[in-house]
Amino acid sequence: MVSLRQSVMTVLSTLVLMVVLSNFGVSAENACCSFPCKNRGVCLTGKDPNTYTCDCANLEYYGKNCEIPYFFRKIKNAIRPYPETTHNALVSPYTRWLFGLVNRITFIHDYFMKVIYLLRASILDTPVLYETTHGYATISAHTNSSMYSRTLPPVPQNCPTPMGTKGFKTLPDVDVLIKRLFTRKEFRPEPMGSNLLFSFYAQHFTHMFFKTVKGKAGNTWGGDGVDMTSLYGPNVDDENLLRSFKDGKLQMQEINKEMYPMYNKDVPIKMTYLPHVPENARFAMGHQFFGLLPGLFLYQTIWMREHNRVCDVLKEEHPDWDDERLFQTSKLVILGECIKITITDYVQHLANYNIDVRFRPTVLFDQPFQYRNKISIEFNHVYHWHPLMPETFNISGTVYAMKDFMFHSELVVKHGTAAFTDSLSRQRAGHVSHHNHGSSTLYVLKDVLEHGRELRFQSFNNYRERFNLHRYTSFEEITGEKEMAKDLEGFYGDVDAIELLVGIFVEKRRKGALFGETMVEMGSPYSVKGLMANPLCSKQYWRPSTFGGEVGFDIVKTATLEKLFCRNIDGPCPLVVLRVPEWVEGDVDELNNFEHRVKDEL
Amino acid sequence: MVSLRQSVMTVLSTLVLMVVLSNFGVSAENACCSFPCKNRGVCLTGKDPNTYTCDCANLEYYGKNCEIPYFFRKIKNAIRPYPETTHNALVSPYTRWLFGLVNRITFIHDYFMKVIYLLRASILDTPVLYETTHGYATISAHTNSSMYSRTLPPVPQNCPTPMGTKGFKTLPDVDVLIKRLFTRKEFRPEPMGSNLLFSFYAQHFTHMFFKTVKGKAGNTWGGDGVDMTSLYGPNVDDENLLRSFKDGKLQMQEINKEMYPMYNKDVPIKMTYLPHVPENARFAMGHQFFGLLPGLFLYQTIWMREHNRVCDVLKEEHPDWDDERLFQTSKLVILGECIKITITDYVQHLANYNIDVRFRPTVLFDQPFQYRNKISIEFNHVYHWHPLMPETFNISGTVYAMKDFMFHSELVVKHGTAAFTDSLSRQRAGHVSHHNHGSSTLYVLKDVLEHGRELRFQSFNNYRERFNLHRYTSFEEITGEKEMAKDLEGFYGDVDAIELLVGIFVEKRRKGALFGETMVEMGSPYSVKGLMANPLCSKQYWRPSTFGGEVGFDIVKTATLEKLFCRNIDGPCPLVVLRVPEWVEGDVDELNNFEHRVKDEL
Repeated sequence: MVSLRQSVMTVLSTLVLMVVLSNFGVSAENACCSFPCKNRGVCLTGKDPNTYTCDCANLEYYGKNCEIPYFFRKIKNAIRPYPETTHNALVSPYTRWLFGLVNRITFIHDYFMKVIYLLRASILDTPVLYETTHGYATISAHTNSSMYSRTLPPVPQNCPTPMGTKGFKTLPDVDVLIKRLFTRKEFRPEPMGSNLLFSFYAQHFTHMFFKTVKGKAGNTWGGDGVDMTSLYGPNVDDENLLRSFKDGKLQMQEINKEMYPMYNKDVPIKMTYLPHVPENARFAMGHQFFGLLPGLFLYQTIWMREHNRVCDVLKEEHPDWDDERLFQTSKLVILGECIKITITDYVQHLANYNIDVRFRPTVLFDQPFQYRNKISIEFNHVYHWHPLMPETFNISGTVYAMKDFMFHSELVVKHGTAAFTDSLSRQRAGHVSHHNHGSSTLYVLKDVLEHGRELRFQSFNNYRERFNLHRYTSFEEITGEKEMAKDLEGFYGDVDAIELLVGIFVEKRRKGALFGETMVEMGSPYSVKGLMANPLCSKQYWRPSTFGGEVGFDIVKTATLEKLFCRNIDGPCPLVVLRVPEWVEGDVDELNNFEHRVKDEL
Repeated sequence: MVSLRQSVMTVLSTLVLMVVLSNFGVSAENACCSFPCKNRGVCLTGKDPNTYTCDCANLEYYGKNCEIPYFFRKIKNAIRPYPETTHNALVSPYTRWLFGLVNRITFIHDYFMKVIYLLRASILDTPVLYETTHGYATISAHTNSSMYSRTLPPVPQNCPTPMGTKGFKTLPDVDVLIKRLFTRKEFRPEPMGSNLLFSFYAQHFTHMFFKTVKGKAGNTWGGDGVDMTSLYGPNVDDENLLRSFKDGKLQMQEINKEMYPMYNKDVPIKMTYLPHVPENARFAMGHQFFGLLPGLFLYQTIWMREHNRVCDVLKEEHPDWDDERLFQTSKLVILGECIKITITDYVQHLANYNIDVRFRPTVLFDQPFQYRNKISIEFNHVYHWHPLMPETFNISGTVYAMKDFMFHSELVVKHGTAAFTDSLSRQRAGHVSHHNHGSSTLYVLKDVLEHGRELRFQSFNNYRERFNLHRYTSFEEITGEKEMAKDLEGFYGDVDAIELLVGIFVEKRRKGALFGETMVEMGSPYSVKGLMANPLCSKQYWRPSTFGGEVGFDIVKTATLEKLFCRNIDGPCPLVVLRVPEWVEGDVDELNNFEHRVKDEL
């Protein structure tokens, strides 16, 4: 009896212990770690953190996990083409005639633009819900301007794995990742023919709003978007340093019969130069990092000349205007030009659509479209396009190694803006992809990978789902090949545990595109929103008087990259394009083969 | 012949001289000084500043002066009732049954609310075009957060008169104006029965966003609107000083068995106290000026208690939440409560409409409504409601003169929050009108009048036109009497030259309203926009998860001023109303007579 009783007691106490332990075990977990809420539902744990509810309010879905579409959403989902289908339709050679027609009929084209703007922008939350320090809605997402916003909240604290519940308990070593997946062995050219003028456009444009505070993953010292602070400086004091206070113009100096920014010794704005940089390579600019590469210096020079040119045009129109009004209004014209050029030259090149990508703010008037923007940390991360940079730069036949190019703004002065522009237009950029990060920027890549972990970014697949893309179900489906797929499996164990940036870079390239699907489908909403939500695009601003009358308004509406350069460079106009002139469509296949060859070699 | 030739020459040279002189004379002028552009058209001078164009782009009007409505606007104008008609319909005893019915049928009521929100908000430009330093569109209206926005640009520089082309060459002496039109001779009670709990609601609420930098007419240190910075402090550092860092709560201390803010000696947040104020009257609060009047201290105390109460509720719901999340989410609940109470108690009282003024963010989802707000300097100016303040304060039978009340927060502690609230509910406020500024705030009035001139505000009539009101054609039409009308004529010479604030204060009172037509029709758009454009009202935020689940969301949705006080005061609930209990509608006529009697006496 005693023995039986003892046995029963033992069994019972074991059972109790198991229950207690299992409760303990589970109570440490957070039901939201598995991201059960679909379709932008918000997960909230209950009194018992093992339980959760999904907040589906104001969504087009309901159900325990916001998984069931309401009737109209169901219809919309049924007829909505998958992003890949839309993309293919827009880039296919077979639809060229159709979109050629659309391009010629303004009201139909306007309708397309409206749909594109609204669909892209609606993917993002405006107002934003999250900033980088909190994983839940806060007021500070709106009041604390020193934080990036974020599109997805972080993985909750204390989840079983870094990605929630999927994958290994620890993430792969960053250095190993970089070595295996990112480091350039051999320069792989950008398959759509993008050149260095494109690369520096990307760099000078994005650095206007991507301004991460050094050493702080989620902090920014930038504004809310496209604001030309890279040209005019981050605040009024800096702006005043750059101004001439005469006829609205910025201070410039003549060197080699061309106008250039002032030397830093003459205009004491805060700039970041290495100690060895001589005085004649230290120029004063609106962005403290724009002395880094001569390509940035070139763009800065051209924009400053354009500002001063616009001042002359406006003064002619308004002889009674004072310096201040000429300055402020030229600034609006320049900002307008920048948005126009970014859309019709830069985004058009990126999209490679058969339909013309146009800048048509009017189509959004009276639409439920929010004219406010907040830069997202995820946008910043996926926009780390350092593989664009080659190892050497060929300027008018002279080949400069990266180390002889960095911090050498004076090369632009030496070769002249015409020759420099021409050379950048003719040199191929690198492919923004795996195994193509040059050694000089690997430290940036390391930083950004580490920041992503510090900010507890959700997985690549979670981001795909957030941007209306299907979740990848195998590593091979992502890469389109076996070798990296195998590496990835070793690193992450589960396709749902891949980090955002890694996924973006190993993803197979989209047909007729510079990048993989995810880069395009994530980047586009941020871009479209950032460009079209500028106050300048609102019906309050978008009218002649804002730009000093019809003359200024026309400058904005008809701006092109080519005009920007040619009007501000004396003599014959250099080649101003975003794609090397020898590129032909056929290259794509050739390059695909090249890519596979590279992979085979690794 | 010679004589004839001489005569001809004399005549010719005189003509030439006249032309030259007239050109000189006129060339100093600016064609925009006469404000020729109607219906929000923007005036721009031509190459010859004597000429102008009106920019009518994106308006519903065209023509040289944007004076001709397009077809649909014409129809809308024809059927749109004049604001006075709408007001009368909404406050008339004869429509009470009708709106009683509307109040009971949610979907019809929602429709009314949507129309009210949209019509009011559409009067203002969002994004704003102007900030206080520039009389034309600038980017800095969006990037320089240290400036108030402004609704109308300033009178151009160098116009013939301070108001453009109308009125005398100089404005009347401010001291004379104050003496003749503003200074209180005898306390005139607020005709709609508003009490001191109302007055301090107005003051504590508006000081959240009206934060003019001392000595700088157009500069603000506030945020963009309703943000509860008055409770939590203007920045994160101050907020941290006020927090307990335990369970999300703010630090409070027990005195006389009630919870109060900490003493400033214990929480070293920047406060503004006169030197003579003793330590036990120096409390630490989120707004540095809230030690000024015990009424502000009362509201602050109650809101802080409410914050801590909400923390307890949320902790009960989410035992696993840390201090930070409890704090941030309670802050959202408090902000939501503040908006809800402001609309359904405070604005309802101000509007005095037969229709219930409700807080229904959902009706604006997917409307072309901008969720962004920028505080306007004109809103600040017309919100100078200092006549609300009486000369003495009766707290539980003890009568305090203003000088014994100011900076005496400890009076709330002494009498207790219950008795203090009760007393404020029972004491009548002053009428916000001419001849009713108490001596203690005349210096503020003087400041604001001078600021209006420094900022070159356009005339009262121009503002009326901007807010869809007819231009007054005589002084008597404004005042509804003869004596002040005569004074005004002497001061300004032309009805189109009256200053904004003067016009607002001398204007005859609207039937069933606290103020004249202009105060209401200007103030309402700013209020509605400021309240409903809060990010909290967007579909991204307005859902249970934002507020920690249904429990927190319900606190917001059902908040009332009475609950706010009663849940945070021990014992029997005091009287919590915004109108003295003995007030009956009939009072209005009695008071109108009283007003006329006062005028007769002056």
